[in-house]
Amino acid sequence: MNSQSVPIELQERSYGIAIGSALFDDPHSYAQLPGASHVLIVTNTTVAPLYAKRLERALHSKFAAIHTVVLPDGEEYKTWQTLNQIFDALLGNHCDRKTIVFALGGGVVGDMAGFAAASYMRGVPFVQVPTTLLAQVDSSVGGKTGINHPLGKNMIGAFYQPLKVVCDLETLKTLPSRELSAGLAEVIKYGPIADLDFFQWLERNIDALLAREPLALAYAVRRCCEIKAWVVAQDEREAGLRAILNFGHTFGHAIEAGLGYGEWLHGEAVGCGMVMAMKLSHRLGLVDAAYVQRVTVLIEKAGLPVLGPCLATSDNAGRYLELMQIDKKAQDGEIRFVLIDGTGRAFVRAAPEALVREVIDAGCLRL
Amino acid sequence: MNSQSVPIELQERSYGIAIGSALFDDPHSYAQLPGASHVLIVTNTTVAPLYAKRLERALHSKFAAIHTVVLPDGEEYKTWQTLNQIFDALLGNHCDRKTIVFALGGGVVGDMAGFAAASYMRGVPFVQVPTTLLAQVDSSVGGKTGINHPLGKNMIGAFYQPLKVVCDLETLKTLPSRELSAGLAEVIKYGPIADLDFFQWLERNIDALLAREPLALAYAVRRCCEIKAWVVAQDEREAGLRAILNFGHTFGHAIEAGLGYGEWLHGEAVGCGMVMAMKLSHRLGLVDAAYVQRVTVLIEKAGLPVLGPCLATSDNAGRYLELMQIDKKAQDGEIRFVLIDGTGRAFVRAAPEALVREVIDAGCLRL
Repeated sequence: MNSQSVPIELQERSYGIAIGSALFDDPHSYAQLPGASHVLIVTNTTVAPLYAKRLERALHSKFAAIHTVVLPDGEEYKTWQTLNQIFDALLGNHCDRKTIVFALGGGVVGDMAGFAAASYMRGVPFVQVPTTLLAQVDSSVGGKTGINHPLGKNMIGAFYQPLKVVCDLETLKTLPSRELSAGLAEVIKYGPIADLDFFQWLERNIDALLAREPLALAYAVRRCCEIKAWVVAQDEREAGLRAILNFGHTFGHAIEAGLGYGEWLHGEAVGCGMVMAMKLSHRLGLVDAAYVQRVTVLIEKAGLPVLGPCLATSDNAGRYLELMQIDKKAQDGEIRFVLIDGTGRAFVRAAPEALVREVIDAGCLRL
Repeated sequence: MNSQSVPIELQERSYGIAIGSALFDDPHSYAQLPGASHVLIVTNTTVAPLYAKRLERALHSKFAAIHTVVLPDGEEYKTWQTLNQIFDALLGNHCDRKTIVFALGGGVVGDMAGFAAASYMRGVPFVQVPTTLLAQVDSSVGGKTGINHPLGKNMIGAFYQPLKVVCDLETLKTLPSRELSAGLAEVIKYGPIADLDFFQWLERNIDALLAREPLALAYAVRRCCEIKAWVVAQDEREAGLRAILNFGHTFGHAIEAGLGYGEWLHGEAVGCGMVMAMKLSHRLGLVDAAYVQRVTVLIEKAGLPVLGPCLATSDNAGRYLELMQIDKKAQDGEIRFVLIDGTGRAFVRAAPEALVREVIDAGCLRL
């Protein structure tokens, strides 16, 4: 399979996403990068033993000094303390303004390495080498970087675009099944919000994706990146349209925050959140029950939970609502949801609290 | 005295600096800001008792909920821990993406409030109300925000432009003399790097500035903002020309880092650093001794130190060099200096280590 490239058009911040196999450890993938005397690879304890040495070798022909910082693995480490390990490595190795930061890992590594690159000396160049499906289809487009705060997920960060993204499908071979499923949640997302053809393709190809067939994965990654690029190009800083990419995330963030970050994977919470958002869209008369059912079945086939956890013994829905109030889409204290109508189109609006409560009450596991 | 406005032209990030008296507590100063249900005033323990209530009252006519967070005062608190107090206040008060962050205080408050605004939810609006001369002439133009790291000053931050800057000369009346002098260091800076007429004006008016005569202060603040705006408009992200604004800062940062932040004020270190940079320019044959003398006399008249502290009992110059290596202007491990030639022009280049050592050896106090 040849590699493909998806261009991301953002004026002077434009870049390309290379998608294919045997890319991340090929020096040619990095030949066009600017020169630098130092580069820093940011990775984690799970990914480092698999891929760090191979990336280091690929970079050696171009860069003189290659440093690697290995972070603990997990969403619960997406904190200032871990971010500071990156700054310590940058400063301890006398990295300068031309130093390129490479993110080798999943979404958490990408978010933290990206925010460190955005903030170190007020901005140094940044390259993404996402090794999970979630990171390949989600964080490789859009430039969102950041860390969590005890009171809210991704509350501290920056919009910061990479110079290049290298999506190597080979790295998905070592991905645990649970993480593959979590990544599929964000893949599925692009169907209902923007592309019914892609949704139907997913219904037909979900087994191939679960079997990690390279051609199916390549098509899914490319199509997701294209859709996301189309959305982001129209709204880089999330003033409007871009918020539709948060389909399932309002409910999902409540699940993640309520259980404690890291308990459910982000994609698992989003998968379940999409089911809730579909049900809410249905109660608002926007989609029929059969469509809700199709989306739910696809999410379940992908190996994702479709019922939410119970977050409080009394007034579980109230607890969800409380947690959703600190969502970034909230305005003037009003919770806003990404809702779907029947035409493969999404929009953001508030919903009557009673309906939201019904959806949560009907969509959660009982204690 | 009427208020004046200096426009800062940065395409869609353009804004205005209002300079005058009785501005910061006048609701009209904020009438053009976008609406928001929450605003957060960031200030410190020194400034809050003097001005926080007055600013809160001025904002009450336009904004429903006004929160204030009071930080400890001093460069030594320009850390992640203090920055986090701002995030805690934003999240604890359910501030959303439209929340406007106001920086009421000096450079440290402005740098931290600005970085918090740049990073909270990946960017919320920001207004500067600088209450020190240093902040009015320096941080009100250019959008530099950030915090210190134990291994280097201002190493973590963002370029982030405010919506508006309100420079109220009245707030300079309560400024301690030592801080007035520190602010004058950054005022004096603009002469040698860009405007010999302004340098001569400063030689004639240094006593009026020290006496805090409003007309003299207004002219100095305006001229500094104009010069800085001219430089920044050409180089917003410090790719080249903008580095000349760091005249005196390479030596100055070494002094601050070597003594421990907060020991000398930033402006004191810069004042002394400018004398060293003039001497280095002289040793490189760029300026004559008489010009070095004129700059030194002006800096001394402003109440600033002109000899550097001893940072190490043996090889003091080596210690300076070591500390200067982590300067952001350094490239490939080579220290770069802002140097002056006789024509009111500055440029950035490396210098032979032996000459730099001579300047440090001759320019420091003996133990």
